[in-house]
Amino acid sequence: MKGMRAIDLNCDLGESFGAWSMGDDTAMLDVVSSANVACGFHAGDPATMLATCRAARDRGVVIGAHVSYRDLAGFGRRFLDVAPAELHADVLYQLSALAGVAASVGTEVRYVKPHGALYNRIVSDAEQAAAVADAVASHPTELAVLGLAHSAIERACADRGVRFVREAFIDRAYEADGTLVPRGREGAVLASGDGIAARATRMASDGLVDTIDGETIPLDAVSLCVHGDSPDAVAMATAVRAALESAGIPIEAFA
Amino acid sequence: MKGMRAIDLNCDLGESFGAWSMGDDTAMLDVVSSANVACGFHAGDPATMLATCRAARDRGVVIGAHVSYRDLAGFGRRFLDVAPAELHADVLYQLSALAGVAASVGTEVRYVKPHGALYNRIVSDAEQAAAVADAVASHPTELAVLGLAHSAIERACADRGVRFVREAFIDRAYEADGTLVPRGREGAVLASGDGIAARATRMASDGLVDTIDGETIPLDAVSLCVHGDSPDAVAMATAVRAALESAGIPIEAFA
Amino acid sequence: MKGMRAIDLNCDLGESFGAWSMGDDTAMLDVVSSANVACGFHAGDPATMLATCRAARDRGVVIGAHVSYRDLAGFGRRFLDVAPAELHADVLYQLSALAGVAASVGTEVRYVKPHGALYNRIVSDAEQAAAVADAVASHPTELAVLGLAHSAIERACADRGVRFVREAFIDRAYEADGTLVPRGREGAVLASGDGIAARATRMASDGLVDTIDGETIPLDAVSLCVHGDSPDAVAMATAVRAALESAGIPIEAFA
Amino acid sequence: MKGMRAIDLNCDLGESFGAWSMGDDTAMLDVVSSANVACGFHAGDPATMLATCRAARDRGVVIGAHVSYRDLAGFGRRFLDVAPAELHADVLYQLSALAGVAASVGTEVRYVKPHGALYNRIVSDAEQAAAVADAVASHPTELAVLGLAHSAIERACADRGVRFVREAFIDRAYEADGTLVPRGREGAVLASGDGIAARATRMASDGLVDTIDGETIPLDAVSLCVHGDSPDAVAMATAVRAALESAGIPIEAFA
Repeated sequence: MKGMRAIDLNCDLGESFGAWSMGDDTAMLDVVSSANVACGFHAGDPATMLATCRAARDRGVVIGAHVSYRDLAGFGRRFLDVAPAELHADVLYQLSALAGVAASVGTEVRYVKPHGALYNRIVSDAEQAAAVADAVASHPTELAVLGLAHSAIERACADRGVRFVREAFIDRAYEADGTLVPRGREGAVLASGDGIAARATRMASDGLVDTIDGETIPLDAVSLCVHGDSPDAVAMATAVRAALESAGIPIEAFA
Repeated sequence: MKGMRAIDLNCDLGESFGAWSMGDDTAMLDVVSSANVACGFHAGDPATMLATCRAARDRGVVIGAHVSYRDLAGFGRRFLDVAPAELHADVLYQLSALAGVAASVGTEVRYVKPHGALYNRIVSDAEQAAAVADAVASHPTELAVLGLAHSAIERACADRGVRFVREAFIDRAYEADGTLVPRGREGAVLASGDGIAARATRMASDGLVDTIDGETIPLDAVSLCVHGDSPDAVAMATAVRAALESAGIPIEAFA
Repeated sequence: MKGMRAIDLNCDLGESFGAWSMGDDTAMLDVVSSANVACGFHAGDPATMLATCRAARDRGVVIGAHVSYRDLAGFGRRFLDVAPAELHADVLYQLSALAGVAASVGTEVRYVKPHGALYNRIVSDAEQAAAVADAVASHPTELAVLGLAHSAIERACADRGVRFVREAFIDRAYEADGTLVPRGREGAVLASGDGIAARATRMASDGLVDTIDGETIPLDAVSLCVHGDSPDAVAMATAVRAALESAGIPIEAFA
Repeated sequence: MKGMRAIDLNCDLGESFGAWSMGDDTAMLDVVSSANVACGFHAGDPATMLATCRAARDRGVVIGAHVSYRDLAGFGRRFLDVAPAELHADVLYQLSALAGVAASVGTEVRYVKPHGALYNRIVSDAEQAAAVADAVASHPTELAVLGLAHSAIERACADRGVRFVREAFIDRAYEADGTLVPRGREGAVLASGDGIAARATRMASDGLVDTIDGETIPLDAVSLCVHGDSPDAVAMATAVRAALESAGIPIEAFA
């Protein structure tokens, strides 16, 4: 098993807000190596951010800023047609806030992952992708960006010398061109029984995945995204981690 | 005039929000030496924060984080009974956000000034004062706190080794014990014609002010607060600056 | 059992917001006779309000407007020092919004219950109580107010000819003077095993309750408040309803 | 001049929020016959709504609900990809809130005008247009909708038996097909000196306008929209009103 390349497991965390809680963050932090921490625009009040940074630090989990459109009512899942200069400032504001919060408890933000509708938008919208990459590049700390391969945001990062890290989704179906099958289409989201652990292991060890049409394509992901907000999220993530470990694949943060 | 101690002029800035503007920030930045920049909780969207940091940097004006209760609808002027742990996180979030925004344009946040109802509350509320001082002390950068002399926040800062800087108000009447005459009482707020420039000069040169009852008391302020949101704010601030300069008092940021 | 006075059961509902859910509204609506529906200021986005009104209508549950300070981040549980004229407008806005939403699905708002910190404040703050009562009185529909006996809001309603309805809490301890033992004091909140069903039945049938010090005092409540957001909320409410029915006490909305 | 058809003048009003003010509402209310009053989602806190309704009532100006995407930071000027069921509820919430506020001071809401990005979107987006029309149709009071001719929202209203009222813009350039020249293109927005009063008079008396390319097309508008937020808004609106009156055209609300 020597020479086996390590893989990162990332998960959205800190998505509670005030009296409302979401997900079992404590349990997920025992499974993942990277935590995408909400920064207040789609979820994550400051006290939640602080508690999440402390918990991640205690478990050696690397922290990323999960930046979003300003949309608490929509949980950042709705496209918002923000002007690039405003998007730049919004992203910079969020990651800076989390960076200071993390630093106050002796840890740090190492990467940025756009959330929800923003994540999807900058797969193809070059203007918004450039705004996000500009914001990350303008931050005094060197930060990576986590996202989808072959995307506008990957190109925008390359243009600015920002490290871009490709991720794959363990529970989402892929098209032949490596894009995700849109949610809402049948078979777009895989459930517990669908061999997710074996699929994740193959992604990590061979860099391959079967598409929704049965083809096999290369993925080349450095990080695997596990979801945190479904009822069986912890069980699924735990099973994936166990399968990776059984296969001798080291689980390590990329950043 | 040699040996004349310098004085700082501070003003609330960056208090626009989205489509709404407030104050003439560009003009005020030519007059003051320290800018209290809103951080999004009472005013100041991220794009405004970024523009304000750039403008302050271009003029050599020092930047402070103007932190507030979370209350856009009330402009942070209404007391909010936040639990200390939440207030700590709220203050840390705001100053961290501004710190990153400032750093992205090559400048930095050097101090924190609580805004509005929070400012007034922590004159006497030891618990909330401790939460604010803890937040500032926990930030990785060394920051000063700007506030009222003999206050709970001054004591909380002293207890934590945080530098506290006393300010005086050029257009507010004082009681014999050095506290401000509450707004709403007759004579609490001085207007343009009330000899404000001479009063400010005396505060800066002699550290003295006449109270509302005609007594003279010591003030010992390192910074003078000029207001930015009244119609004649720029004219008043400009007159104060001119009077200070005529008296040979250097105007310099404290931080 | 004839002649037995009816009792109302009220519960806070519709307290989800966007992606965050709270409580099991569907189950609670099968138990209670009156639903305090959140109106967007502490919880309750418009789509949730609409769904809650439909569900209440389908079960014949009477709808009340659960009005709050504007404080999503604090779930309306933090005192906010709003000026009376603003509080009047805030309350009117919320109850009007819910009234239109309810009317659009063929039902109506019949009462107002202040929420959280506002509820507690207007037990004693005559100025804020007056603002709330003014807002209710100014609404074109005749509405009752649900609250604590012997309170400032009860007096403010009486002064304006607004019907005031007294409620009791099945799971809160009482002082000898009929006020609630403050949360945080030991014994302030009763748990499942504490004979709550028997206590509620006695409140309804005899109008009596044992205080935290063991005295028996009169309560005279027309409605009993059951909580909806604890893990065993539905079980507790169901047990209370069963006990009331066993005792032959009719459960009927007051409005 | 007998037989001259009346024209309505409408203007966006009540767009202040908390400490931020916008426009000279008092002056504009002396000029227009219909007020599009902000309902809290892009502007307009409840106290401002209440004050605006009082001021409109005192001058006999008809009130419309100026409903928007939920976007205070963007003033409702940014497209938000809201699901139809949520948009329905958001629109219903806003117009209901204003309806109750208006009723509390003895007046009423008679129409709905979508604001900003929502206004523009439902010119062509049939799904969002249907959601808006459904919301208006579901409200217990019969309300008209004010918007652009030949639009998706006009068709959606027709399908539901909701009265649709066409408006024209006195200071916007038109294409040959009757659509507006997009802001940002040269000549899209006319300034004071561009013969706006004469243009408005021709729109009202003859139902004609010259396009940006010099053609003359029919407009058939029942209401003319005057803007309220430019520095010379009141002067322009006053000049238009004077020109209409000189031409003997009665100025009357359509609703």
